[in-house]
Amino acid sequence: MDLTALSNKLTAALAELHYGDQPTALYEPIRYIMALGGKRIRPLLTLLGAQLYTDALDVALKPALAVEVFHNFTLLHDDIMDQAPLRRGQPTVHEKWNPNVAILSGDVMLVRAYELLFDMPPALLAPMLRRFSQTAAEVCEGQQWDMNFETETEVSIDQYIDMIRLKTAVLLGFALELGARLGGGSEADAEHLRLFGEGIGVAFQLRDDLLDVYGDAATFGKRVGGDILSDKKTFLLLTAQTQANETQRAQLARHIGQPIADADAKVQAVRALYDELDIRPQTEARINHYFEDALQHLDRVSVPAARKEPLRHLALQLLERES
Amino acid sequence: MDLTALSNKLTAALAELHYGDQPTALYEPIRYIMALGGKRIRPLLTLLGAQLYTDALDVALKPALAVEVFHNFTLLHDDIMDQAPLRRGQPTVHEKWNPNVAILSGDVMLVRAYELLFDMPPALLAPMLRRFSQTAAEVCEGQQWDMNFETETEVSIDQYIDMIRLKTAVLLGFALELGARLGGGSEADAEHLRLFGEGIGVAFQLRDDLLDVYGDAATFGKRVGGDILSDKKTFLLLTAQTQANETQRAQLARHIGQPIADADAKVQAVRALYDELDIRPQTEARINHYFEDALQHLDRVSVPAARKEPLRHLALQLLERES
Repeated sequence: MDLTALSNKLTAALAELHYGDQPTALYEPIRYIMALGGKRIRPLLTLLGAQLYTDALDVALKPALAVEVFHNFTLLHDDIMDQAPLRRGQPTVHEKWNPNVAILSGDVMLVRAYELLFDMPPALLAPMLRRFSQTAAEVCEGQQWDMNFETETEVSIDQYIDMIRLKTAVLLGFALELGARLGGGSEADAEHLRLFGEGIGVAFQLRDDLLDVYGDAATFGKRVGGDILSDKKTFLLLTAQTQANETQRAQLARHIGQPIADADAKVQAVRALYDELDIRPQTEARINHYFEDALQHLDRVSVPAARKEPLRHLALQLLERES
Repeated sequence: MDLTALSNKLTAALAELHYGDQPTALYEPIRYIMALGGKRIRPLLTLLGAQLYTDALDVALKPALAVEVFHNFTLLHDDIMDQAPLRRGQPTVHEKWNPNVAILSGDVMLVRAYELLFDMPPALLAPMLRRFSQTAAEVCEGQQWDMNFETETEVSIDQYIDMIRLKTAVLLGFALELGARLGGGSEADAEHLRLFGEGIGVAFQLRDDLLDVYGDAATFGKRVGGDILSDKKTFLLLTAQTQANETQRAQLARHIGQPIADADAKVQAVRALYDELDIRPQTEARINHYFEDALQHLDRVSVPAARKEPLRHLALQLLERES
């Protein structure tokens, strides 16, 4: 199946999912956030992982949904913690209902995510549940690091990369690994696919950092410069802070962590410093590094290259690259 | 093993549990809440359930810990929702750290609870994980009903009983059922034990309602009259509201849901009305009903009565009854 057909299969299966009925205040928010949409990348990765080995994808369908329900659980709880008013342009659950409802609905979503895994073949059940749980804990660790970094003064680039790896990339890796094992792939293949997914995830996150500063306002979907305005310790800012000379460091310090007089001026000033320090090409080089490394792992998966095409295509699409 | 020996075994195993190290802000709260203590009734029930069938209790030890970690996860999240300042006399996690830390640590606890179940024998893994997940969702449903009832004007006694069943009793039932299955008990036995646990749980909750009004301040551990002061819709209040004549209903309405002028006076006035309506004996009768029903289920468990003694003893102890 091509990406569109797989996507449609997922959309149909997600629409059929039943989370529970009563009390409504518990289950309605789950239906709400699951219906907000999104690209469904993670469950797609699970199906694509399975499709490397088999055309009988039904074994991977419920586990794919588990990954998507889990992902939305993390969004629901993260939005409370980040006090985010909007998710995909719609009010967040804690805004539309209240934080208590958001906490509790999220808890049930995590339970439902687990439940969607219990039909797995017995031989895979315990090992894959362990890997899912490990991944789930890592995603929580990533979110905690992210919150820690908001108030920490010294964050290294390595720490930052590890945070985005945990918060975002490990779930992409797991989604693929899960699909591969369910499709019949070997542990070695699944490990390469996991590392492929993780690498793509880190590259994607770095690209998000880059687009925040250098993206096209029309297509980015968020306010360009948003990270700069919120003093977010992104890869760009951390790299700039590491490489700035004394004058440049002082210039940065006049903008970062200070009250904002003129938002556009702040964004322009910080971007000018990034330009001076060649932060953009350095970030692009780092994205390429993770992307190329990921592709090498995909290359080492022992199925014919033609079968890997949809996966490679999705990775290119995610990073909006030509090849 | 007797109750003390089992308790010691649990305390030692809980002390050995490793939740994770970094980031500290994520894992320290878990160690903190798990170290606050409590009676460890639920994991004790799991071990007692297993001990009906076997003296080799190690198969049930990690699953017993899973139940206790899950229970503490619910306490952690419930305390945020209830804005409780104290838990077992110590600051709650959201007070000692902050609500975000409490949300995220709780999430990881739920994951760790699942992980403690994955070593179960393969034949029991999927069915018991399903039952655990069902129970977990029911506990969340109970908490949501409890929150709903705070603002609802019409709550029936049946709805109230079902709320406490979900919020508290089903986990006691599951703890026993899990232990029974792990020990080698039949599905029929496990079902009777589940219903025994559930019945004890409902009786225990009703007894808590009763003690709030008629308990001995010295031994109750909470402020006597606390439910009355907070207008909590307990079994006693709901029964009184159902059975009050017009005059009595008006008297109740002067106190319930009104600003408190004199706390002692409010407690005394409501208690006087309860006395007038014979609420105490009615509550005692209801407690007895659930307790006797529970014991009948225990009777029907197909092991010699002598083996059931510790379980019967614990139930009596929980409800502080002589026989």
